[in-house]
Amino acid sequence: PRGNRNTRVKLYILYNHWALKVLLYFFILVSLCLAIFEEPAVWPLPVWATMLVEVLCLLIFTIRLVHYAKVIPRDKFWKDPKNICIIVILMLTLVDMIIYGAMKSANYYGVRWSRVLRPLLLVNVTEGRQLRRAFRSIRNALPQIFYVFLLFMFSILIFSLMALKLLGKRGLKNIDGSPYFTSYLEIIFELYVLVTTANSPDIMMPAYNASFIFAAFFILYILINTYIFMSVFLAVVYNNYKKYLKEEIRQLVRAKRHKMVRAFAVLQEPREEGGEPVVTRATWNQVVQLVQPNLSNAHRELLWSVSDDKNQGAIGKVAFVQLADLLNIEVITLKSRPHPLQWLCPTLYQSAPSRLLCRMVQHRAFVIVYDLIILVNAVFIGLDEENPMIANSEWVFLALYILEILLKLYVFEPRDFFSKHSFWNWFDTIVVIAALIATIINSAMKTSKDFSSQQILDIVFILRVLRLVRVVDSIKRFRTIINTLIRIGPAILTFGQLILVVYYIFAMVGMELFKGKVTFYGQSSTDPAKAYCGNPLLNGTDFAKLNYCKNNFNNVVSSFILLVELTVVNQCSGFVTVTHISARIFFVLFHIIVVIVILNIFVAFVLEAFFVEYSVDKNTGWDNLVNAMETI
Amino acid sequence: PRGNRNTRVKLYILYNHWALKVLLYFFILVSLCLAIFEEPAVWPLPVWATMLVEVLCLLIFTIRLVHYAKVIPRDKFWKDPKNICIIVILMLTLVDMIIYGAMKSANYYGVRWSRVLRPLLLVNVTEGRQLRRAFRSIRNALPQIFYVFLLFMFSILIFSLMALKLLGKRGLKNIDGSPYFTSYLEIIFELYVLVTTANSPDIMMPAYNASFIFAAFFILYILINTYIFMSVFLAVVYNNYKKYLKEEIRQLVRAKRHKMVRAFAVLQEPREEGGEPVVTRATWNQVVQLVQPNLSNAHRELLWSVSDDKNQGAIGKVAFVQLADLLNIEVITLKSRPHPLQWLCPTLYQSAPSRLLCRMVQHRAFVIVYDLIILVNAVFIGLDEENPMIANSEWVFLALYILEILLKLYVFEPRDFFSKHSFWNWFDTIVVIAALIATIINSAMKTSKDFSSQQILDIVFILRVLRLVRVVDSIKRFRTIINTLIRIGPAILTFGQLILVVYYIFAMVGMELFKGKVTFYGQSSTDPAKAYCGNPLLNGTDFAKLNYCKNNFNNVVSSFILLVELTVVNQCSGFVTVTHISARIFFVLFHIIVVIVILNIFVAFVLEAFFVEYSVDKNTGWDNLVNAMETI
Repeated sequence: PRGNRNTRVKLYILYNHWALKVLLYFFILVSLCLAIFEEPAVWPLPVWATMLVEVLCLLIFTIRLVHYAKVIPRDKFWKDPKNICIIVILMLTLVDMIIYGAMKSANYYGVRWSRVLRPLLLVNVTEGRQLRRAFRSIRNALPQIFYVFLLFMFSILIFSLMALKLLGKRGLKNIDGSPYFTSYLEIIFELYVLVTTANSPDIMMPAYNASFIFAAFFILYILINTYIFMSVFLAVVYNNYKKYLKEEIRQLVRAKRHKMVRAFAVLQEPREEGGEPVVTRATWNQVVQLVQPNLSNAHRELLWSVSDDKNQGAIGKVAFVQLADLLNIEVITLKSRPHPLQWLCPTLYQSAPSRLLCRMVQHRAFVIVYDLIILVNAVFIGLDEENPMIANSEWVFLALYILEILLKLYVFEPRDFFSKHSFWNWFDTIVVIAALIATIINSAMKTSKDFSSQQILDIVFILRVLRLVRVVDSIKRFRTIINTLIRIGPAILTFGQLILVVYYIFAMVGMELFKGKVTFYGQSSTDPAKAYCGNPLLNGTDFAKLNYCKNNFNNVVSSFILLVELTVVNQCSGFVTVTHISARIFFVLFHIIVVIVILNIFVAFVLEAFFVEYSVDKNTGWDNLVNAMETI
Repeated sequence: PRGNRNTRVKLYILYNHWALKVLLYFFILVSLCLAIFEEPAVWPLPVWATMLVEVLCLLIFTIRLVHYAKVIPRDKFWKDPKNICIIVILMLTLVDMIIYGAMKSANYYGVRWSRVLRPLLLVNVTEGRQLRRAFRSIRNALPQIFYVFLLFMFSILIFSLMALKLLGKRGLKNIDGSPYFTSYLEIIFELYVLVTTANSPDIMMPAYNASFIFAAFFILYILINTYIFMSVFLAVVYNNYKKYLKEEIRQLVRAKRHKMVRAFAVLQEPREEGGEPVVTRATWNQVVQLVQPNLSNAHRELLWSVSDDKNQGAIGKVAFVQLADLLNIEVITLKSRPHPLQWLCPTLYQSAPSRLLCRMVQHRAFVIVYDLIILVNAVFIGLDEENPMIANSEWVFLALYILEILLKLYVFEPRDFFSKHSFWNWFDTIVVIAALIATIINSAMKTSKDFSSQQILDIVFILRVLRLVRVVDSIKRFRTIINTLIRIGPAILTFGQLILVVYYIFAMVGMELFKGKVTFYGQSSTDPAKAYCGNPLLNGTDFAKLNYCKNNFNNVVSSFILLVELTVVNQCSGFVTVTHISARIFFVLFHIIVVIVILNIFVAFVLEAFFVEYSVDKNTGWDNLVNAMETI
């Protein structure tokens, strides 16, 4: 039925409308942010309020899913694991909310365990393709990683056994007087932590103090486990993740080609003189106009002339299949637009002084002069800003920077200057204008009420320092490095979502396990409990002595910051002290997942970007070499 | 003059004699080990004794160099930087020794600064080719690394400036009450250390305690500098080091080919029917016999038949040039040797029970049974060895392991069993026999004098645990990983020399800078100075509290162990306290050279080995894919 089909197409176009996608992501964000207001909260809200918002979110997700079900054939919908996942998540969340509400109203203690599932929505919505691909690649790479991990654990177990036998019976003492290396499980954990270098060299000192020789044991351990095994993990994660990601992309390309072939079969017309069927130019034009309505005529002409390179008025299967790739190619329209001033007052713009100015601004010396100004500015920033001379110099620098932007706008066509790819022009203009506004506000507040807002001042400082970053763009080598880093931006975004999902899950679990165990007392607090973070168990521990009280799981923001710290250095002794020795499992698991797997994927992305960058150089080098070899 | 030439060839052969090479390395080792006996010494020796040994070493090196000068044409000798290096090192050492001797005898304080040069001999002797190549590759890669380093330092400077402006004026306090982030140089250093993760999260706590927002600053810093920049360093070091190493190898191949072409020009004979000149079989035989006298006739025949594949009795230029490569190919002679027992008592060895035994040993179940025995053994080792039942079980396990080796020797030909490539057979036999001997000695000492030597017992324990490692070989996946690691063995050896050179230089400098500043008092000492490592400046510092006193530069062994610790975690606050703030330069320099450059090269080797390993798998996967693509 044609009518039915038409509604379907309309529904499909509606489903892919950008506003609905933004709405979906907004509600996912809202649902994730609920953790800020739920118990344990940064800003507590009553349970009914957060529940209400969550129900709203669930409703939105359900509507979106129903919409998707209308668009997609029924059998395909039920075969797709991501839909099943969403349904299960929504159901479980609902069940959990009902149970929790009932428990709460009966004044029982309830755990909102379904909060762990929230970030999984991010993965399973239709738009989370990249993220889903990343997770799938990790899942596929896991067996290989697992074998290395087994070998790594075997090595730790063997070393622990050796340590137990060598050091356990010598009556050595830790710095706090407790016996050193007498429990096997304790040794395994301590040696695992040594791999993260968090307890180096402390864990080795009692043995090293007893004899030189024992240092050899620890050095061998570090060499094998910290250096060799961690490198092997990087190699294995790198290889396997890339392998499966490439496999995914390849399957995608294959699927695309398959669909294009099917489209061709629908659109093809038999040629009059016989031979291969073709798609005529008229049909082709219609299709392109339907797919990308806002493509310019010139662009479409260009694409057609590329496809129909023999100018036959129709294209075959091979040329048609390439259409999808052709549409993806970004065509930069390089119009040598005249400067607006040129047609506003041509005589002035073309006059000798104006042309001299243009030549000056485009000269290398102009860049050098401004780099020098930036350097002088850096020195002035470093000096004491209480000095009125220094404080006033800020206005001079601001004026100079604004002058630079105005001069450039005078010389270069404004739309070219602010084109999509001129990252540094955008950066410059935004920073300078923001600094100008913030400085004006700041000095206005100062003069009017003799009161300076610390927040505004902070922003002014940050903007001032950020202006210095611009100098990087003047040095070619630096530009190459930064461009390489910018190129992996999209990959890093996917990676950021990945780590958000993992952090969120660990934060939720960590909050249930450790909330309220460690309390932070403000700077001005005089509570005696401040010395031991409000938990007598911490009295006298390093955790309390080093004033780590704010590293806690008492709300979702603290948890996230703590998880970042744990990623850098896995220090968990405090939490083990306040709960139970088995809490270590949480921290070891976190280390395995975040540091060994996910961080290595991040490193792999950076490595790959630079390898690609360098392989371009190397190829030309190789050609030279081949030439050199042939002349011998 | 033919006589002169003959002596030269003889001198050349003598120069390359293995005994002379071993002698040279022995004396380099002696010269390096002198640091153990020189002030500050592990075992002090009088100055004249170490001086005498050093003069002897210098003499040996000079003789070796003179020998080399006789072998090599004079102009080539003087053009070679390695010879100039050795001469300069020898001269400087001599000058230093004379000055030091004079100062010492006049009771002045002298510094043996030329000790820093000692490890450079290791690099510059003729045999140190690999090491020289490694250093050359590092030197060539330095410019690229330097640019990234500049950008990295720029980033640290910008972040430090921001930290100073944001945090310096807030009156925050460190944990020891000192002002937080008020000095720019201090901030730069602290943020540099944060990159090594050594002071995380301590450095962030005062700011974080003041406000949540400041945590964002540190997280951004860690993301950019610890994660992104350190990965970029790895990528750049990896790429450039590999690139220059490959370039070196390529030049070597070119030089070899060039030399072989020259050799061909000397040996060639015009062919009777005209055409290209050739080398006859007789000349070829003579050359091969001269170059490799202990090559078997069969092997030589094989090489000839490979070269002269058309059986013409003479080979052309192309075939001759390949000779050097052919000689490098290891030919494994696979003789299916009969078992010695088979010709000693054939009837017994061929009897039905004997053949059954052979089949049993070669069966998979045999391996599984012994893996189970190893697991049971592991449990027994973990149990308390004071229990007499457990202690006696050791004999049972030893007997089982010896039985296994004997059974295998019965079944497999002994020379095959102990062939060069059977790593695990060698490992097994050595560990089991050593364990047997050590256990016998231990129990003999126990029963006879009722006294057990701790050293022997330690060795017994280590050997027992090492036996368990064997289980790894039974699992195929583990074997692949371990074989990959074994394959980079030679590269790791070169790398070990590289790090030895760098460590030695830093140890020598460190000893001059920091010797005697920190003292270690034994466990039983009751000296009150023990609490602050013998230096009142350390009173109450973390260094003293954590009992790091043995981490010092008081002798070369301590220095090396400390340098390993610094490689893992760069903790230098103690040494800055006892000397001067500028001592930080030493530690930062060490971090840059060892962690950023050399360790990354090590990681690069491990990565490369695994990439090669996996690319073999991938290629077959690729072929499958191509087939799959073509079938669509």
